[in-house]
Amino acid sequence: MNDRFLRALRREPVDRPPVWMMRQAGRYLPEYRAVRRRSDFLTMCRTPELAAEVTLQPVDILGVDAAIIFSDILVIPAAMGMDLSVDEGVGPQFSDPVRSMADLARLRDVEPEEGLRYHLDALRLTRRALNGRVPLIGFAGAPWTLFAYMTEGRGTKSFAIAKRALFAEPAFAHALLGRLADNVGRFLVAQAAAGAQALQIFDSWSGSLGPREYREFALPYLARAARIAKTSGVPVICFAPGAGWALSEIADATGCDALGVDWHTDAAWARGVADGAGTALQGNLDPTTLYAAPAVIRERTQAMLGAFDRPGYIANLGHGILPDIPVDHARAFVDAVQAWDSRAESARAPATEAPR
Amino acid sequence: MNDRFLRALRREPVDRPPVWMMRQAGRYLPEYRAVRRRSDFLTMCRTPELAAEVTLQPVDILGVDAAIIFSDILVIPAAMGMDLSVDEGVGPQFSDPVRSMADLARLRDVEPEEGLRYHLDALRLTRRALNGRVPLIGFAGAPWTLFAYMTEGRGTKSFAIAKRALFAEPAFAHALLGRLADNVGRFLVAQAAAGAQALQIFDSWSGSLGPREYREFALPYLARAARIAKTSGVPVICFAPGAGWALSEIADATGCDALGVDWHTDAAWARGVADGAGTALQGNLDPTTLYAAPAVIRERTQAMLGAFDRPGYIANLGHGILPDIPVDHARAFVDAVQAWDSRAESARAPATEAPR
Repeated sequence: MNDRFLRALRREPVDRPPVWMMRQAGRYLPEYRAVRRRSDFLTMCRTPELAAEVTLQPVDILGVDAAIIFSDILVIPAAMGMDLSVDEGVGPQFSDPVRSMADLARLRDVEPEEGLRYHLDALRLTRRALNGRVPLIGFAGAPWTLFAYMTEGRGTKSFAIAKRALFAEPAFAHALLGRLADNVGRFLVAQAAAGAQALQIFDSWSGSLGPREYREFALPYLARAARIAKTSGVPVICFAPGAGWALSEIADATGCDALGVDWHTDAAWARGVADGAGTALQGNLDPTTLYAAPAVIRERTQAMLGAFDRPGYIANLGHGILPDIPVDHARAFVDAVQAWDSRAESARAPATEAPR
Repeated sequence: MNDRFLRALRREPVDRPPVWMMRQAGRYLPEYRAVRRRSDFLTMCRTPELAAEVTLQPVDILGVDAAIIFSDILVIPAAMGMDLSVDEGVGPQFSDPVRSMADLARLRDVEPEEGLRYHLDALRLTRRALNGRVPLIGFAGAPWTLFAYMTEGRGTKSFAIAKRALFAEPAFAHALLGRLADNVGRFLVAQAAAGAQALQIFDSWSGSLGPREYREFALPYLARAARIAKTSGVPVICFAPGAGWALSEIADATGCDALGVDWHTDAAWARGVADGAGTALQGNLDPTTLYAAPAVIRERTQAMLGAFDRPGYIANLGHGILPDIPVDHARAFVDAVQAWDSRAESARAPATEAPR
C-alpha cells in the first residue's frame, strides 16, 4: 500500500511528499463531467456508486496519493432538515434559512448512519474499491462555514446576514454553532468507522471573519468538532483558508494532526508554526498557477516543495482546483511532486524559496 | 486647524486618534446619492465641482478628521489611453484590455496636469473649500491592481487572465508594471503639488497573489511608486488588503509613513510590525460591523481603539464602507472614536482586545 500520505500525517520520513488536490474529483476531469451529465450534483452525492466512481477517478487518471470522498459540506444542514438545492450557475441554496431560535428548534440532530448513510456507504464502497492502493479521506464543513450558509441561505460576498446574526443575536449564534460542532464531530467519527483513514475539516469561509469574531465564533467550534473527531483515532486535518494568521491558534485549539495552508500563506511562516506546534502541513500552491504552461507549473511546484519539504508535509493546492484547468496541467502538478526526491533535495541547501 | 490626522502620521501624541473611512464619499450617504442621480460616476470624477462637493460631504455630515478626494483608481489607465466605462451593476470595464507588448506600446505616459487635470483641479478646489478644517488626502491605485484591471478588462474573481500573463509573459508584465509605477508615482507627486497633504496608495487586489508572486510583481512596483511619491515631502500611506502577512516587507520596501491595516489582520501583530518599522498604522474595523446596532458598533470600535491606540494610529475601517450601511451607523463609528480619550485610556491596562 502507498502509505506516504498517512506517514506524512504522522511526520514520519517519506521518499517524496505525498500529493493530492482539493476538489480533485471535479469538473476539470472529462470523466467527471461525463458522470455529471447523467445526473445532477446532489444525486451524485447521494448515490454511493456514483460518488465512489468519481472519487476513484483522480487516483486512476492522475496517480494522486490519497482519495477524498466525493460529497459536499452542506450534507449536514440538509440532514438536519434544511431544504437544499443546487442550481447550475447559482450554486447551493436553502429555501428555509435558519435565523432565529425558533428556526433552530426545527432542526434535528443527525444520526449519521441514518441521515447520512449514503455518504458512509460511499466511503465503504470506495474503501473496498481502492483495495489499499491509497488512503481514503473523509471530510465535513466546519461550524462557522455551515452557519454562514444556513443563515444566508446561499453563497454571499458580504456575509451581511450571517454577521448581523453574530452581532445582534450572539446567543442564537452560539447555540447554532454548538449544535453544528456536535453534529460535525459525530459525522466525522462515523466516517472513520466507515473506513475513512484521515478526516479533513473545511472552514471554507474562515476569511470572512476578522480576528475577534474568528476567535469567538469560528475557532472554538472548529476545535470542538475536531476534538470529537480525534476520538476516532484517525488523523485530523484542519483547513481554514483566509485565516493563515491564526494557524498557531488553530493548532493549539484543535489538537489537529495537520494544518491545511492556503495559498496566501508564506511557507516559512507556516513551517515555523508547524515546528512549534508539532503538526504536519498540507498545501499550498496557488490554484491559478495551473493556468500556466506545464514547465512553469513544474518550476513553481518544485519551488514550493523546496520551501516546505520536511517530515510531515503533504503537497496540495492552496485551495480547490479550478474547473477550467486542463487535465495535462493538473498532471504536471502531480508529476512534479512525484519526480521530487526528498532525500536528495534535503541535502541541498538553501531551499529554493528563500525563507524570511 | 484639526491636524490630528497629520500628527498621527508623524507619530506625534494626539488627544484622541483621528478618524476617517475609506470610501467615505460614497453611496451610503443620501447626499451623495442625490449628486449621483444627476450625473454618472465618471462624470462626477471628471467634474471638479462635483468631486469637491461629495468629498466635503462626510466632513460636514459626520465630522471625520480627514477628507479624501473623490476619484477612482482607474483614472490612470484611462489617462494612458484606455477606454474606460462604468456600467451600473457590472462595474468598471475597459473595451481594450492590454495583453501584449504591442498593446503596451499604444499606451501613453501621463502628464498629470494635462491628462489628469480634472483630478488635480478637484484637489485645488477642495483644499480651498476646506479652508484648513481638516487635511486633504490624495490617492492612486497601485501598479499590480491597475495591471489586473488593465489585463482582465474588468473585475474578476479568479484573475485568470492577469495571472496567466504573469506566468506566461513575465517580461511583458514587468514592462507594464514598471510603466505604471512611474505614472502612479508622478501622479501622486502632482497631487501633493495641487494641495494633497497626504497620499494613499491602494493596492486593492494584493490578496489575489500568493507570497512569491506578490514579492515579484506587486511589492517592488508599489515600492517604486511610493518612493517617487515620497519625493513630494508629503506622507504616504500604503494599503495592501489581503497582504497582512507582508506588512513588514511593505514598510521596508516602500519607506511609507503609515501602513493601512485590513480587517483580517490582528491588531497586536500589526502593532508589532509598526513598532519595528517605525511607521504609523491605519485601520481596521471590519466594515460589516457597521451592520450591527449602534451600541455594538461603539463597543467594537472602542475595543479596536484599545488594541491599537498609540502615537501613530489613525482609526478607520479595514476596507471601504459598504453602500447599504445606515448613516447613523457610520456616525456611531465616528462618534465612538471622537468620544475616546487617548490620555485617559493609555493609563488603563490591559487593552480591551487581548494581545497574543
